[in-house]
Amino acid sequence: MQILADENIPMLEVFERHGQLHRVAGRSLNPEMLKDVEVLLVRSVTQVDKTLLANSKVKFVGTCTIGTDHLDLEYLAERKVGWFSAPGCNARGVVDYVISGLLTLAERTGADLTQRCYGVVGAGQVGDRLVQVLRGLGWQVLVCDPPREQREGGDYVDLKSIIENCDVISLHTPLTTVGEHSTRHLIGEEQLAALRPGSWLINASRGAVVDNQALKTALKERSDLRAILDVWEGEPQVDVELAQLCDIATAHIAGYSLDGKIRGTEQIYQAFCQYFGLKPEAGIEFPPQRLLSLQLAEHIPLMEALRVVCRAVYDSRGDDARFRLSLSGDAVERRAAFDLVRKNYPVRREIPDLKVTVEGSELQQMLGALGIKA
Amino acid sequence: MQILADENIPMLEVFERHGQLHRVAGRSLNPEMLKDVEVLLVRSVTQVDKTLLANSKVKFVGTCTIGTDHLDLEYLAERKVGWFSAPGCNARGVVDYVISGLLTLAERTGADLTQRCYGVVGAGQVGDRLVQVLRGLGWQVLVCDPPREQREGGDYVDLKSIIENCDVISLHTPLTTVGEHSTRHLIGEEQLAALRPGSWLINASRGAVVDNQALKTALKERSDLRAILDVWEGEPQVDVELAQLCDIATAHIAGYSLDGKIRGTEQIYQAFCQYFGLKPEAGIEFPPQRLLSLQLAEHIPLMEALRVVCRAVYDSRGDDARFRLSLSGDAVERRAAFDLVRKNYPVRREIPDLKVTVEGSELQQMLGALGIKA
Ligand SMILES: NC(=O)c1ccc[n+]([C@@H]2O[C@H](COP(=O)([O-])OP(=O)(O)OC[C@H]3O[C@@H](n4cnc5c(N)ncnc54)[C@H](O)[C@@H]3O)[C@@H](O)[C@H]2O)c1
Ligand SMILES: NC(=O)c1ccc[n+]([C@@H]2O[C@H](COP(=O)([O-])OP(=O)(O)OC[C@H]3O[C@@H](n4cnc5c(N)ncnc54)[C@H](O)[C@@H]3O)[C@@H](O)[C@H]2O)c1
Repeated sequence: MQILADENIPMLEVFERHGQLHRVAGRSLNPEMLKDVEVLLVRSVTQVDKTLLANSKVKFVGTCTIGTDHLDLEYLAERKVGWFSAPGCNARGVVDYVISGLLTLAERTGADLTQRCYGVVGAGQVGDRLVQVLRGLGWQVLVCDPPREQREGGDYVDLKSIIENCDVISLHTPLTTVGEHSTRHLIGEEQLAALRPGSWLINASRGAVVDNQALKTALKERSDLRAILDVWEGEPQVDVELAQLCDIATAHIAGYSLDGKIRGTEQIYQAFCQYFGLKPEAGIEFPPQRLLSLQLAEHIPLMEALRVVCRAVYDSRGDDARFRLSLSGDAVERRAAFDLVRKNYPVRREIPDLKVTVEGSELQQMLGALGIKA
Repeated sequence: MQILADENIPMLEVFERHGQLHRVAGRSLNPEMLKDVEVLLVRSVTQVDKTLLANSKVKFVGTCTIGTDHLDLEYLAERKVGWFSAPGCNARGVVDYVISGLLTLAERTGADLTQRCYGVVGAGQVGDRLVQVLRGLGWQVLVCDPPREQREGGDYVDLKSIIENCDVISLHTPLTTVGEHSTRHLIGEEQLAALRPGSWLINASRGAVVDNQALKTALKERSDLRAILDVWEGEPQVDVELAQLCDIATAHIAGYSLDGKIRGTEQIYQAFCQYFGLKPEAGIEFPPQRLLSLQLAEHIPLMEALRVVCRAVYDSRGDDARFRLSLSGDAVERRAAFDLVRKNYPVRREIPDLKVTVEGSELQQMLGALGIKA
């Protein structure tokens, strides 16, 4: 079996046991390369459609990403090509991103994170995990997810309640432009005006879920508001003025942990084996940590421990700094720089990877909430 | 023997073995309290002069600070009162502050710390230690200290060479206003204009060593310059506009490690024992660490290891955030806030305190340079 893969997918070796693996640059992929290829493994830079596949024997398309915007699903269905994405693979990275942002805002505003009310909008792969961490830490969380609420019922509130009651609002919906639950400009002028004094808004979902112009105006008018943006309306073109008004501004990298990327490969690999009735190899081994462990004393204050542990693994201020460096130059240069920041992203691991040793049940509960195993 | 001490001096217990210890608020100290007192232990908030001592039996004054501005040394000599300060006790804290600032600026500018030329101006307790760390890391360092050069000779350069050759200039002189080596406005309009493109200026010595107005103008005119200021002309009154132009701005806390404060007590205690011919107790025991240890993998890149280790102990961005919070309000409120930031300073340890486990000789050399014992 011939397998063609984007060379930027990590841990591709695992496929070698089952066929002949060819690695190519994702952007260079063309129909010629697909002659005799049955399995195509891509990332979001490759458009998978009729133009690419028409004369191929491709039976299976795997995209090691959570999104499928770059796949022509209708055409794949028509051609009876099996396709798989990797839902949730990078969800934990986004959770780490949000936690890091909270720690920074707490430091910059003097706010006590334990006393804030958190509003999570969109309780899917990312949102659900975030809610679990925040509640595990013992913090107050309200959740808004009307589609899930309609489908499953449960302990949800509407967006209005989130805005009325929460000091921190974190967005984790897809971008949808039609239907009852359309999320485009979910946070617009009206919602921004209604935010509680000293509110923080975090968007690491899709840029247009927030009306960027309205947010810019709001941040200029209300110095009490704080914003963290990882995603931008019209990215890779970013409104520089808006970025400058944000406490943390980053280049759509919230989910960019190495673990997330490997998990993407793992999920596609499992789907591939199942699809072809193959016996999968043992799970992919994650590369060893650079920071192996951390030992805390029992008397360390809880918030200090939280800070030390989380920041030792990931601190979004570094990504913020790199992004701001990319904001000089003209519009064309800035667009290129946005992509470059993402392409040259440093190795980043996830908080649950860290080994932490500490006595004391309160501390262990906190670590447990972060997903760190004792 | 009656001993009167500022209650804010840590680890005072060690004096209890040798006399009767009374603790009072440093600012409330008055002549009445000194009846029968032979030993007076102060910090910088207490003016020790004729007004305070005239009717006392004080024989020994110890100030657990490096400075002696608050002691009337002439009067003490005249009265034959022995006095001691604690030179260098908090020097390491300042070194940690400088390292932390370098890590932040590297992140924000994209500069490679290993490729910069460092200029250390003033090679006393702080400067000497800083030079040792930077050279230990294998970085290029030029040192300027005309008084020492005249006294001892050695490998020094003049300020002009520092400005011509260095990308980073860190000031560690005292503030002096007279004589050949006067340091007031050592860095003024002329020096600022001559700084190399992309230079960084760090001042954690005394505010007026830099002409603050000239620096403000320079930072407004040259966006390539970066400044880190811990000390301010006219502090606790701070030029808010200047602070906003700095990458890191803090409230004269560079040396505020707990270790430094305890070392101050230790030094005065040793001087006290020697002065009265007493046998000192075993050295003061430092309180246990909150972060006990950190284990790195051999394959961690050197700069990443440096970042993780140093920031796990101290990150000046936290102090910067707290300081910026104090910059709101009117002039009177801001002055009070400056003092409050210093008074309510969190527990901070020093980099050499941290226990780090790692294989690999390059990494161990780096840790050794930081003062961390294997
Ligand atoms: N910034 C990054 O690096 C990064 C990484 C991963 C995911 N994302 C983005 O984050 C978002 C969430 O990702 P996910 O994997 O959790 O998706 P998901 O599909 O698993 O979850 C989305 C949830 O949003 C809910 N939802 C839909 N419309 C809503 C509305 N109007 N109000 C409230 N909730 C609504 C859905 O019911 C669903 O539960 C997506 O936009 C995704 O593209 C970004
Ligand atoms: N920000 C803080 O928290 C903090 C903490 C400790 C010390 N300090 C300050 O840092 C400075 C250095 O402290 P230290 O303990 O190292 O003092 P120190 O007296 O040990 O050393 C000062 C050095 O500066 C040299 N010097 C004097 N004039 C000079 C000139 N014109 N050019 C170059 N060098 C000159 C001296 O020869 C001496 O070697 C002092 O101003 C001190 O008050 C600040």
